[in-house]
Amino acid sequence: MRTQVAIIGAGPSGLLLGALLHKHGVDAVVVEQRSPDYVLGRIRAGVLEQVMVDLMDEAGVGARLHREGLVDEGFVLAFGGQSHRIELKRLTGKTVVVYGQTEVTRDLMDARAAAGLPTVYEAEDVAIHDFEGTAPFVTFRKDGVAQRLDCDFIAGCDGFHGVCRASVPADRIQTFEKVYPFGWLGILADVKPISHEIVYANHERGFALASLRSPTRSRYYVQCPLDDKPEDWSDARFWDEFARRLPADLAGKLVTGASFEKSIAPLRSFVAEPMRFGRLFLAGDAAHIVPPTGAKGLNLAAGDVGLLSRALAEHYRERSSAGLDDYSRRALARVWKAERFSWWFTTMMHLFPENGAFGARMQIAELDYLMSSEAMQTAVAENYVGLPL
Amino acid sequence: MRTQVAIIGAGPSGLLLGALLHKHGVDAVVVEQRSPDYVLGRIRAGVLEQVMVDLMDEAGVGARLHREGLVDEGFVLAFGGQSHRIELKRLTGKTVVVYGQTEVTRDLMDARAAAGLPTVYEAEDVAIHDFEGTAPFVTFRKDGVAQRLDCDFIAGCDGFHGVCRASVPADRIQTFEKVYPFGWLGILADVKPISHEIVYANHERGFALASLRSPTRSRYYVQCPLDDKPEDWSDARFWDEFARRLPADLAGKLVTGASFEKSIAPLRSFVAEPMRFGRLFLAGDAAHIVPPTGAKGLNLAAGDVGLLSRALAEHYRERSSAGLDDYSRRALARVWKAERFSWWFTTMMHLFPENGAFGARMQIAELDYLMSSEAMQTAVAENYVGLPL
Repeated sequence: MRTQVAIIGAGPSGLLLGALLHKHGVDAVVVEQRSPDYVLGRIRAGVLEQVMVDLMDEAGVGARLHREGLVDEGFVLAFGGQSHRIELKRLTGKTVVVYGQTEVTRDLMDARAAAGLPTVYEAEDVAIHDFEGTAPFVTFRKDGVAQRLDCDFIAGCDGFHGVCRASVPADRIQTFEKVYPFGWLGILADVKPISHEIVYANHERGFALASLRSPTRSRYYVQCPLDDKPEDWSDARFWDEFARRLPADLAGKLVTGASFEKSIAPLRSFVAEPMRFGRLFLAGDAAHIVPPTGAKGLNLAAGDVGLLSRALAEHYRERSSAGLDDYSRRALARVWKAERFSWWFTTMMHLFPENGAFGARMQIAELDYLMSSEAMQTAVAENYVGLPL
Repeated sequence: MRTQVAIIGAGPSGLLLGALLHKHGVDAVVVEQRSPDYVLGRIRAGVLEQVMVDLMDEAGVGARLHREGLVDEGFVLAFGGQSHRIELKRLTGKTVVVYGQTEVTRDLMDARAAAGLPTVYEAEDVAIHDFEGTAPFVTFRKDGVAQRLDCDFIAGCDGFHGVCRASVPADRIQTFEKVYPFGWLGILADVKPISHEIVYANHERGFALASLRSPTRSRYYVQCPLDDKPEDWSDARFWDEFARRLPADLAGKLVTGASFEKSIAPLRSFVAEPMRFGRLFLAGDAAHIVPPTGAKGLNLAAGDVGLLSRALAEHYRERSSAGLDDYSRRALARVWKAERFSWWFTTMMHLFPENGAFGARMQIAELDYLMSSEAMQTAVAENYVGLPL
């Protein structure tokens, strides 16, 4: 088999890259170790920045997103028993769209299948080769048969635990990491959300987040100890704890019900530099992880893929390597800003007992200052809606 | 002896309060444990916010400050080998004035003496009494003779180590504190400053600060280990280390020479709540300490004293306790915002090895973001020039 770009990973990054390349007339084969159902089963963030919405439109897969996505012109910060609103639209002219990552993946998957573009699911023993040379290739086994995919470039869209970054010699890559000393317990429940705008709550018992997937499906979280297990949290315990962390005006709107998904996720900040190694380009979680506060993960991956698709298209169209040569620098400049915002937002909103009473007051002082300052609100809002590509 | 307000401490807070009360026709006696020369010998910050300049004018002691102070319309952030400017005047319409705390104290001291207002220096065994009742008084010994000063109110302007806060029962006061794991080594030298605007440098070897007292007197600092001693730092070692932490454009302008003051100061964030206990009001360092990054300490004290002088004047003029009753809340709202800014600025600019490579990159990401965002620059500038009283 031969293609121009071998894309490793059929999550939203890999599929969006495939869709964008197809629009630019560049051939790609997507190779994924898991099954389509497994990929769709990964519950992730659900807030899309304008940059990502634009890329979905550019890829021709934005129709359902525009039809079903909920446009939010603000978000809510709750602290000190009060709710406060950051007016995204007024401050930046931009909005965000509530639309689950699972739905993004499904739209991209359906469009790829409809266009007859090649995707290999359940590929075993995926390995990448010779990306430092001029003739890279990918090997894997499919239904027990060894396969080889020759290509011009490899796009590593295979996530934090994928083979692409792991294939780079350790002395060629520098990594930066912070692991937070708590997790997020998240549930999905078919109950009316307390707000169609996302609510981030700073509370002395810990952080809480009220998100949603649709007008009838709520996605709620509470900060919890890292060693807690989902089975430690009955629905009753979750609803009680969640309600206690909300201001009264929002807690009063809470509708409870049976959860149908309950999981605990750790929070991590991670960046690998650079994002290019010869003919291998990393994108999304393969190169960087943000803690989920502010929902930057998927959006950041989309940004990488937007830059990479343009650089590859330019290469084939104009025989220019300028975009490819600049990819790592440009992507990382944006990545570090989003890492900073996600780290800041996480640090401001969560309970960090190790920072003591002074640290807790610094959070409240920061939130008080934020709500008193148009300039600071604008700074937060411009990060929240996403910095330009 | 009897007066309306007994002011404990003849530093800039106590003297400014005395001057403002005098303008409002309120009598005060200032009681100070040290000598005038000792008070003047304390080398502190030298950047005045507009709010403080206005209060000096209101007190009628702003003439020399306007004549000799250097008006700065911006300040400089150095990182990654480059200098960047925060344009205070353009972003906020306001400026800051470089004028040493020693000069402020001298002006207030001279004006107090010229007006014949009573100040007791070298008072021994100062103690405050019955401030929770209706007839507070102060006792001390002067030249070996026991004295008693009866008053309506006591203003605790006697600094972090003073007797006023220490006289409050522990169960009436809540304190918040953070001690930073490094110090500032500062020197004074009669050499031309590298810049008439203050320079804050983030460097992998540690923070450096280039300040000044006049066009011919430089005040420079380097972050150093807390257990260093001034005698560990020869002038040659200081100049070498200081120059290494500056970008080339600024290092090239460095003029070295003999230092005539060299000291190491720890950095601390501290707040005591509340700031009022019956007829005792705390102001300035007696109630709160900020790390010196951003020069908020003296300005914050002036803000307290501005609020307190108005509240006391209102009390005597209108027989209203509204201002006094609201003093602690209003002062603390402003204090916490300045604490936040000083903590943030300190955290962003200093070397914290315990935060690892990720922490160091977060600083650079924050600085990069700041220099890319008009909104964030405005937020920083509005804090730097001082939030409104």
